Amino acid sequence: MRIALAQLNYHIGNFELNTRKIIDSIILAKQKKVDLVVFSELSICGYPPRDFLEFKDFIQRCTDSIDSIAQYCDGIAAIVGGPSVNAKKEGKDLFNSAYFLADKGIKKIIHKTLLPTYDVFDEYRYFEPNTHFECIEYLGERIALTICEDLWNINDNPLYVVCPMDQLILQQPTLMVNIAASPFDYRHIEERKKALRDNAEKYKIPLFYVNHVGAQTELIFDGGSVAFNHKAEVVNEMKYFTEDFNVIDTEDFDAPVLDFGFSTVELIHDALVLGIQQYFSKQGFKKAILGLSGGIDSAIVLALAIKALGKENVSSILLPSKYSSEGSVTHALQMLQNTQSPNDTIAIEDIVNTIEHTLQKQFENTTPNVAEENIQARARGMVLMALSNKFGSILLNTTNKSEAAVGYGTLYGDMCGGIAVLGDVYKTQVYELAKYINRNEEIIPAAIINKAPSAELRANQKDSDTLPDYAILDKVLFEYIENRKGPHEIIAMGFEAALVHRILKMVNTNEYKRHQTPPILRVSPKAFGSGRRLPIVATYLN
Amino acid sequence: MRIALAQLNYHIGNFELNTRKIIDSIILAKQKKVDLVVFSELSICGYPPRDFLEFKDFIQRCTDSIDSIAQYCDGIAAIVGGPSVNAKKEGKDLFNSAYFLADKGIKKIIHKTLLPTYDVFDEYRYFEPNTHFECIEYLGERIALTICEDLWNINDNPLYVVCPMDQLILQQPTLMVNIAASPFDYRHIEERKKALRDNAEKYKIPLFYVNHVGAQTELIFDGGSVAFNHKAEVVNEMKYFTEDFNVIDTEDFDAPVLDFGFSTVELIHDALVLGIQQYFSKQGFKKAILGLSGGIDSAIVLALAIKALGKENVSSILLPSKYSSEGSVTHALQMLQNTQSPNDTIAIEDIVNTIEHTLQKQFENTTPNVAEENIQARARGMVLMALSNKFGSILLNTTNKSEAAVGYGTLYGDMCGGIAVLGDVYKTQVYELAKYINRNEEIIPAAIINKAPSAELRANQKDSDTLPDYAILDKVLFEYIENRKGPHEIIAMGFEAALVHRILKMVNTNEYKRHQTPPILRVSPKAFGSGRRLPIVATYLN
Repeated sequence: MRIALAQLNYHIGNFELNTRKIIDSIILAKQKKVDLVVFSELSICGYPPRDFLEFKDFIQRCTDSIDSIAQYCDGIAAIVGGPSVNAKKEGKDLFNSAYFLADKGIKKIIHKTLLPTYDVFDEYRYFEPNTHFECIEYLGERIALTICEDLWNINDNPLYVVCPMDQLILQQPTLMVNIAASPFDYRHIEERKKALRDNAEKYKIPLFYVNHVGAQTELIFDGGSVAFNHKAEVVNEMKYFTEDFNVIDTEDFDAPVLDFGFSTVELIHDALVLGIQQYFSKQGFKKAILGLSGGIDSAIVLALAIKALGKENVSSILLPSKYSSEGSVTHALQMLQNTQSPNDTIAIEDIVNTIEHTLQKQFENTTPNVAEENIQARARGMVLMALSNKFGSILLNTTNKSEAAVGYGTLYGDMCGGIAVLGDVYKTQVYELAKYINRNEEIIPAAIINKAPSAELRANQKDSDTLPDYAILDKVLFEYIENRKGPHEIIAMGFEAALVHRILKMVNTNEYKRHQTPPILRVSPKAFGSGRRLPIVATYLN
Repeated sequence: MRIALAQLNYHIGNFELNTRKIIDSIILAKQKKVDLVVFSELSICGYPPRDFLEFKDFIQRCTDSIDSIAQYCDGIAAIVGGPSVNAKKEGKDLFNSAYFLADKGIKKIIHKTLLPTYDVFDEYRYFEPNTHFECIEYLGERIALTICEDLWNINDNPLYVVCPMDQLILQQPTLMVNIAASPFDYRHIEERKKALRDNAEKYKIPLFYVNHVGAQTELIFDGGSVAFNHKAEVVNEMKYFTEDFNVIDTEDFDAPVLDFGFSTVELIHDALVLGIQQYFSKQGFKKAILGLSGGIDSAIVLALAIKALGKENVSSILLPSKYSSEGSVTHALQMLQNTQSPNDTIAIEDIVNTIEHTLQKQFENTTPNVAEENIQARARGMVLMALSNKFGSILLNTTNKSEAAVGYGTLYGDMCGGIAVLGDVYKTQVYELAKYINRNEEIIPAAIINKAPSAELRANQKDSDTLPDYAILDKVLFEYIENRKGPHEIIAMGFEAALVHRILKMVNTNEYKRHQTPPILRVSPKAFGSGRRLPIVATYLN
């Protein structure tokens, strides 16, 4: 049997586009004499559709689209992901399903059993879990068809009490197909391949896996669809971060193995570029602006945005104040020398002075503090947003994960923006990104990489005045955020107790700021945003 | 048997406070010769603890607290809500449990079966559902103990395939106890009493129900704990929006029925006052500021905040610009005449002029548009935030639900704030609130109520220049947001097609703005925020 894996980039709710893409691939597959073409999970509507699933109108458009696709399925079968209605009155109203289309109709609908409801996933919010297991007979093969999470219940501490493939294997399937929408994080490619390989190894039949590719706001889908033979060897691995279409013949199953060796920093880099590009293209935006401070974060964001959008579309605005070091301006200009991209300089001095003058009476007899620092940051935010509104360019937020974690940033100031590019990248990882971006030629000036980080909101300010050294801070944050370790566990690892308490308190008391940040491109296993939900009004660890 | 219902206000993660409150109630109950005292769902840690549940340290503190409470349970039993660890390796690591404490120890742990995972609820994110059903024998009674949602599966379209009381009733219990954390919305008191009454009616045994009270950021818990006799008559109904403690003797079970008759607007009013009060008190804040525009929204917020925090703690700032009508300032001053609360006037003219002057070169040859309007709104936001930062007062956001829905507001301008007071109140409901607030005396000046709404960001601007009439807009929004009706269904109700499409498009394309708003006090069955999750980059209905 000839199977095509169609790894496509869908747009949530864009039924015309998604349907046309699927039909085009079916036509292409027919030309390539394919017997079965497989599309990813919820391909019909894009993933994740979130509460659009609560609209009957939305579900109707999904099923209408599937009906129109079915008309192209003659002499070929297709597996398309989409929601389906639960006919029983008990339980949730929908299933997360795989439609098996052939002979111009829907031959079978298979439902997802294991509904991920953790981190960024909310599937039990919408879907009833499947309880009925049945293989699909097609051209002499017996297909065990599952959806994403269904294959993930195979480790030592399974999250679910049912294992769908343990049920399906009783019917002696000859091959497995899994359709997925598995988002990227820098660990996930290896974890995912291991989980899939474990399935091929356990059940001893070939496995064809098709993943979503592209980004949907903060979630980046990396693709990497893959096929294993019955010996659990990779026989086909598809591209990462881009659409792909491969045909695999089950007769010819010991083809040379592809294996992409990615470094973590390369993955993060490519994911962020895709994330920026998609945020703009899926909303029909072309132009970005950002504040270029002369520091490393904005320099990296500029480099990534140029990669994603083209240098002519990324405007850097220098916004010096009286506290900007001379270095800051010259370093920013060096960066622009390297990128040769559009830029402008707008001094914020007059705005800051006018605001302070306006508040003279109110601020009389107070000592300058964070209020004055925030005025500067907000003056910058205001200028950038005015340009954004006037010229329709989207402001890129340059806050990094370390800053977002401890609340080192000004709400409505440097925390403005349409999308936060580095909000899931710790400061220490930002430096690694700089090195990677400079791997062939100097794009980020050495002076930017080598100087001590500073917000430059008061004279001679350094991040280290307020924050612990990033090398230590990031480690403690990682244990708390990514690994969910409590204070005692972190202290037991050798970190100073007072420092750990101080850091965790900073993280927890700044939840209110993170509540109002732009969406953050997710590249780690635990990003701020929809995957990490904490109460604001709480007193745990603070 | 003498049963005490302890309706308390817990603080998430504040183990010292929660434990002390529970112990104090046990001591009080002992004095009143009570046999069993019942506390609400997850009382030990407060509800909802969200991702704190992923920290072993947090769970340990829950169980330590329960152990310390058990020491007070001699000669009395207590039911306390808390998470418990799932001993099996399959499934999620935790249960949402009710601890039955007696003889200074944990006698039984009952787990929640039905895990709400919709709207603001995420319980399947954390908990494994119960599958084992067992009553508790105590002092000759056989208690069917369930947790919140467990009693809600009794309508015609049940959300779950299991009905816990159908299982428990087989063991012939003599009474039901349900511990809950059921948040307020203006419909929910009646729905909740009906669901509980339906249970008492169906199973023909008494029902004792204890709910959480108080607010946790955006979620407002209204209390209203209640007891029914076996004839499904209310024998005890506890206070709304405040702590309460009642003792009920099962021997004396035909006591007079209390029934509080609330109007919707009264409920919304009381809920918002509690929500503001709790947001401040649970974070240790005392002082609020707001921008008083002379319009109805900020006037209502001022009135509510004074009720919640005391007039000396709420500062109104008038921020006139050249586009402010004379009426605006005089109306704001009339309001302040009525409230006699602190206020200040800060003209934003100079700031706006300086910003426009700073951007003169960039804005040359462009026509004034939303960019200039936003500059004014952001100048106000910046002044208010500077005062907030300088004096530690929290900015109250005054955006209403109609504006939030269609994106009629400036990000980082009038959308700033710590908590959004009216973000779940449609403009037409805002007028009802005004009437209610003025029921005894004029607090909101008639001039404010009677004039046409305007953002006053350009000359002679009216909301109706941009937006449909609120009477129609709010109805369409309600069908789309609360009732999840699609365009065809709404048009079929008699609304003009072009208008419906225009409104839904405004709602969907402004998701990005709502992503960055402050938490919104929830008073409706479908509020913006954690209960409504939509993708930003999507094209459905836009």
